[in-house]
Amino acid sequence: MNTRFYNARVLTMNKSTSVIDDGEVLVKGGSIAYAGDSAGAKKAARGLKFDREIDANGNLVMPGFKDAHTHSAMTFLRTDADDLPLDRWLNDSVFPREAKLTGEDIYHCTKLAVLEYLTSGITTIGEMYMHPYDISRATEEMGMRMVLCGGMNNFSQSIEEQEEWFNNLNNKDSLTSYRLGLHAEYTSSKELIGALSDLAHKLEAPVYLHNSETKGEVEGCRERYNATPTEFMDSLGLFDYGGTSYHCVYLTENDMDIIKKRNISVVTNPASNLKLASGIAPIKAIADKGINIGIGTDGPASNNCLDMFREMFLTTALSKLKEEDASVMDANKVLEMAIGGGARAMGLDDVDCLAEGKRADLIMIDLHQPNMRPFNNITKNLAYSGSKSNVKLTMINGEILYEDGKFTEKYYVDEIYEEVQKVIERVR
Amino acid sequence: MNTRFYNARVLTMNKSTSVIDDGEVLVKGGSIAYAGDSAGAKKAARGLKFDREIDANGNLVMPGFKDAHTHSAMTFLRTDADDLPLDRWLNDSVFPREAKLTGEDIYHCTKLAVLEYLTSGITTIGEMYMHPYDISRATEEMGMRMVLCGGMNNFSQSIEEQEEWFNNLNNKDSLTSYRLGLHAEYTSSKELIGALSDLAHKLEAPVYLHNSETKGEVEGCRERYNATPTEFMDSLGLFDYGGTSYHCVYLTENDMDIIKKRNISVVTNPASNLKLASGIAPIKAIADKGINIGIGTDGPASNNCLDMFREMFLTTALSKLKEEDASVMDANKVLEMAIGGGARAMGLDDVDCLAEGKRADLIMIDLHQPNMRPFNNITKNLAYSGSKSNVKLTMINGEILYEDGKFTEKYYVDEIYEEVQKVIERVR
Repeated sequence: MNTRFYNARVLTMNKSTSVIDDGEVLVKGGSIAYAGDSAGAKKAARGLKFDREIDANGNLVMPGFKDAHTHSAMTFLRTDADDLPLDRWLNDSVFPREAKLTGEDIYHCTKLAVLEYLTSGITTIGEMYMHPYDISRATEEMGMRMVLCGGMNNFSQSIEEQEEWFNNLNNKDSLTSYRLGLHAEYTSSKELIGALSDLAHKLEAPVYLHNSETKGEVEGCRERYNATPTEFMDSLGLFDYGGTSYHCVYLTENDMDIIKKRNISVVTNPASNLKLASGIAPIKAIADKGINIGIGTDGPASNNCLDMFREMFLTTALSKLKEEDASVMDANKVLEMAIGGGARAMGLDDVDCLAEGKRADLIMIDLHQPNMRPFNNITKNLAYSGSKSNVKLTMINGEILYEDGKFTEKYYVDEIYEEVQKVIERVR
Repeated sequence: MNTRFYNARVLTMNKSTSVIDDGEVLVKGGSIAYAGDSAGAKKAARGLKFDREIDANGNLVMPGFKDAHTHSAMTFLRTDADDLPLDRWLNDSVFPREAKLTGEDIYHCTKLAVLEYLTSGITTIGEMYMHPYDISRATEEMGMRMVLCGGMNNFSQSIEEQEEWFNNLNNKDSLTSYRLGLHAEYTSSKELIGALSDLAHKLEAPVYLHNSETKGEVEGCRERYNATPTEFMDSLGLFDYGGTSYHCVYLTENDMDIIKKRNISVVTNPASNLKLASGIAPIKAIADKGINIGIGTDGPASNNCLDMFREMFLTTALSKLKEEDASVMDANKVLEMAIGGGARAMGLDDVDCLAEGKRADLIMIDLHQPNMRPFNNITKNLAYSGSKSNVKLTMINGEILYEDGKFTEKYYVDEIYEEVQKVIERVR
């Protein structure tokens, strides 16, 4: 399937956030054949036959967003028990209901999340949840690109399982990748973290984990080990091959230096950190260190929606609040975090921009809606004023999965809704 | 024009946030003839002929949102000069460009904002800007309900003008109401505030104004008068007939007591307060005093979008952050602020809920989208997970102005976009 977008504004995000006013994007199979001005498109199109030629009508074609940290299947807990203190929410709602989930439940609940990602222009997810094979079955069937990581802790998942998943779910030709992962320091023994560090060394692989999400988590680690979670886990060699830390609301100067030195990415989850009253991550300080930053929604139980527009606005606006300076965290930098930063955080080098040979993971943004007018600054509008209602089309790996408010016919949307409704009625 | 919605979930917001699963809403001309369960609808429909009968397909029919504080025409400044320190943004972008605006410019720029309100399910706006007759010409033509207030200060608008506008723009049969207004204490002399207080007494009318938006504003007032803005303006009798205070980020305990005693409403503008690094309003403390609270977007120069879903999420989530307690500010309370609270703040008693005799200002929310599934809690989903993409229909005064992503044919949307683009090119 080859597709041509013409009459388009094009934002390649290839080292620049400038918009090409008269542009084209050519897609050959699952990859980009050309993204640039219409003059250059003629040569690139030679010999290509297009199954579909889409008149973009001046709308913006750009790379899809990367939701770099989520727990998709937690859709079943969306608005199940909000407005509770954190401990009651976890103990009365999350844990007892999660305990009843089967792999098949997770398959259906993940599919519901994928529908929502597509409506928000999200083309890759950084996933962490239970039952990896059921998750990847759902995302592969739906056509969603996913980087899945382990969520190992004292109560679930093992070193042996992680090695097996690492070997089985890193097939170059699929949409799925697998990374070693730890739920967090506070849910894992020193021995378990040490064993994961050994596996990371054996596989020469980065490690993904929740890190310093709450004040209590950091204080607990200091009491246990007289060190911050970052210091402690680094001392066990866990970060020797890099990786990604989620949340990072409470980092010391020394933590940031370690993160920088170990080439670790940070993924920020601002909506979840607000809703759970965790705090505001020091994104300006992290960015000033030169650390790569991605953006994630976290799961729909704590957010509760899977909407990168909300996360982008919060990433810039909460930084302004925290630093008491309206000039902090330029919206174009945040846009880069939501695309290239997220791709790097997930360890993908072929979905960060629109350029020849990159994967054809792209979206079209409707500029004929009032929230995108007038044209003072189109890219900053995305972070400040954009909405999922502007997502006119979402393509992953060259396949159009969502267009003009409708999903591809290969999905059975009502069936997905019904299956998830059955899940919540059973686990209540 | 009479309209019947059947096969609907109905949220009346009439003293309750419970959802009627099998409901109908009947609209006769500009008002609600019935809103309730389908059994009761049969009797109410007797003798009524419907021009249109809409199968809601299980979607949610509910009152429209009230954007209780905005500056609509500032659409022309949307993303014009963001990521600047506040003083540079005001002095380099806002003030010089505003000085070049004509009444005709404001007419066009207001129309652009109205398009955006409709996409977000907003059916009444609390407006403050220059050139009242041009603003109301735009909103009346578009069919938008508006409560306009003066923005008088040392540099613009006069007592005489306000009295004239009060007398001319409060026609019971139109969509427009007018309230006395002051830009703010820090832009107005003691004499001017005193004169407005005299006019308020003469007309026995409430006064609307920006109040305690920034730390600097409160500190300045303390230096000038050894009082907070609330204390100082109250001492001049400005609040003797009530009114509404916008922003209220910095209120003392005594300020809140005055606000409660004078029966003043507070309108919170969380996105604007974040983006301008102003702070987080103490909404929990204000609510605990029993003060009425509405929600507003503020203008599109400081927000930058006109989206009540974003404001609702921020109102609950920022309160949780501020109070360090995830249980604070229940989403259903926030929903009530966004509808009934806003109506009361604007001084309207006929748009707060769906009930017989109330104005037919309503919206239909698409529940067949993934962000609204599963059905754990439909009303809390609105605040936590809802998006303007869920707004399937917006009706004001019985007239459907927006439906399935399209505006009524009476609008010339492209012409509005072009006129506003011309404005920004001229005032740059």
